Amino acid sequence: MEKNIDVLESWLKEQHSEVAFITEPENIAYFTGYHSDPHERVLGLLVFSDHPPFLFTPGLEVEDAKTSGWKHDVYGYSDTEDPFQIIAREIQARVQKPTKIAVEKNHITLDRFEQLSGKFAGTSFIPIEHKIQMIRLVKTEDELKILKEAALLADYAVQVGVDEIAEGKTEAEIVAKIEFEMKKKGVSKMSFDTMVLTGKNGALPHGTPGDTKIKKGDLVLFDLGVVHKGYCSDITRTVAFGEITDEQKKIYDTVLDAQQKAIAKVRAGAPAKELDITARDTIRAAGYGDFFPHRLGHGLGASVHEFPSITETNEMPLSENMVFTIEPGIYVPGVAGVRIEDDIVVTKDGYEILTEFPKELLVIK
Amino acid sequence: MEKNIDVLESWLKEQHSEVAFITEPENIAYFTGYHSDPHERVLGLLVFSDHPPFLFTPGLEVEDAKTSGWKHDVYGYSDTEDPFQIIAREIQARVQKPTKIAVEKNHITLDRFEQLSGKFAGTSFIPIEHKIQMIRLVKTEDELKILKEAALLADYAVQVGVDEIAEGKTEAEIVAKIEFEMKKKGVSKMSFDTMVLTGKNGALPHGTPGDTKIKKGDLVLFDLGVVHKGYCSDITRTVAFGEITDEQKKIYDTVLDAQQKAIAKVRAGAPAKELDITARDTIRAAGYGDFFPHRLGHGLGASVHEFPSITETNEMPLSENMVFTIEPGIYVPGVAGVRIEDDIVVTKDGYEILTEFPKELLVIK
Repeated sequence: MEKNIDVLESWLKEQHSEVAFITEPENIAYFTGYHSDPHERVLGLLVFSDHPPFLFTPGLEVEDAKTSGWKHDVYGYSDTEDPFQIIAREIQARVQKPTKIAVEKNHITLDRFEQLSGKFAGTSFIPIEHKIQMIRLVKTEDELKILKEAALLADYAVQVGVDEIAEGKTEAEIVAKIEFEMKKKGVSKMSFDTMVLTGKNGALPHGTPGDTKIKKGDLVLFDLGVVHKGYCSDITRTVAFGEITDEQKKIYDTVLDAQQKAIAKVRAGAPAKELDITARDTIRAAGYGDFFPHRLGHGLGASVHEFPSITETNEMPLSENMVFTIEPGIYVPGVAGVRIEDDIVVTKDGYEILTEFPKELLVIK
Repeated sequence: MEKNIDVLESWLKEQHSEVAFITEPENIAYFTGYHSDPHERVLGLLVFSDHPPFLFTPGLEVEDAKTSGWKHDVYGYSDTEDPFQIIAREIQARVQKPTKIAVEKNHITLDRFEQLSGKFAGTSFIPIEHKIQMIRLVKTEDELKILKEAALLADYAVQVGVDEIAEGKTEAEIVAKIEFEMKKKGVSKMSFDTMVLTGKNGALPHGTPGDTKIKKGDLVLFDLGVVHKGYCSDITRTVAFGEITDEQKKIYDTVLDAQQKAIAKVRAGAPAKELDITARDTIRAAGYGDFFPHRLGHGLGASVHEFPSITETNEMPLSENMVFTIEPGIYVPGVAGVRIEDDIVVTKDGYEILTEFPKELLVIK
């Protein structure tokens, strides 16, 4: 982690900025190893071009932060103190009058920005989020190892869900079973609310599992992931319970074909949009162009959705050791909802697929 | 819900503001009945002083929003469109040149604010978060009924946890069991990550459950809650596993005494700080003043932490049908961590306690 803070310090020097105020909890965890959800309280990492960094936390977390392995200072504030007064005081103790403060414009709220900037008349504020995205974009070997472990845990979670499928079971019951088994395996947190959607619910790309009971002839969609050692996985599989119609089968085959063709395009140097366009063209050619309403995928790492978006307009070239999802879907109301998603690492000449759960249509009798 | 949007519309008129752009998902759910976590995408509720409101959602949620019971328009955007261009176009279709746009300054990020304000030269921006907090502060009879149900579910969850306590069980195993049983009861979501902390871990007020095994002589702390019909509960209980020391017992008794004395001060009209000061004085008098590092409590409703904070400096008078937590704690590293928390409704002459799990020290043999 120290290595990465060095990168920020060098970047600050290049930008002629003396200090960065980083507030996004996953970014803070990434740079410090200290994981915390401060809820409505203020958590910050202060990085300087010419001074050691420090953590700023709610008072009741100071001890926790100090014992987390973080080797630099930690300052706290009580619930009756003004956090920005303390932050400003500690910045000014190091840099009397900063010319530029870097902030994550995509995370800091307008009121917090106004509180901070109100204490630094004449200082300008520059965005740091893109620099952080670029640092996090390319994974180290250690990160890839953890992401692989996270992906295998997601595979296992899908298997648990598939094994639970039975006439009359509700979506919510299967979610409960999956999460219970994952907790027993030591997974303390899913990377987002586990989705199990059956029948017509699967055709809502962002539906919520509920009391709907699984019945023969349903397609059952699982979308889930785990947080493992601070890194996320994200997998989607759609399986059939009993016989499905020819049209449902055609939709499944189209999604799988689109997904595999997009994956085949992955290699360092390829523009991100090539993958989305490949999948979208395949789906369009099969007559379902109007039923794939989302991007092909998203970056994956310490956050379950991170930079970049894999869209049909993103010209960014893929680079080695980037990790992202490829997850085309077709959602035809009243007919079928199918999505298939894997976690992919870009390699020099191609790709590695982290998630391994089989993709040929699984028909559960 | 329509009633509440009327209140916003009237407020906009009073403020001479033509439009509000509301982005906090729980606020949107509160005013529209539409629950959604848009992750990094843009979700907004647009309310006008003189036009019907509309929802703005990611493209893949438009159908979901339309079938949620929301009776007005819904606009969506695809992953390759600029959401703020569409929002600005729809605002301008109703109000050519707004003089004031109201935003939640405590939620909108700086970059989104810059994108929005960049499309409205000459328009000023005013905060709406305090108005929304004040609307949400005082609960209706329907909301109180749901909050009571949520509190009883939390009581049940503590009972599940207490029943699981046994030599050698880990914190994480007990968390898994609690959440599994709650899902089986139809609870789709806990209001925050369930906390079960044993022994020395209990002395970290924001610790994370892990592999630590429960052993005789431990105090075991449960802090948890559920989301039920869109409303949250939040309870903490600390129980003993086998014999505990006299000092641990004294700490428990002090926290309970502080909590009960603070609750006894609750009535419409009392300043919020009176409760915190009462608890803090009690803890200080027992010699533990340095070991109660957080506020006494927080508002509770559609969010698990909402306005107001119950602190020793908050002069705000309590009002009838406000709901908040009272949760003093003492954390002495290496000795004991004890917190006791209930959910409280302010009544005209006093209070009602929603959470019912017993508070006399439970000693599990």
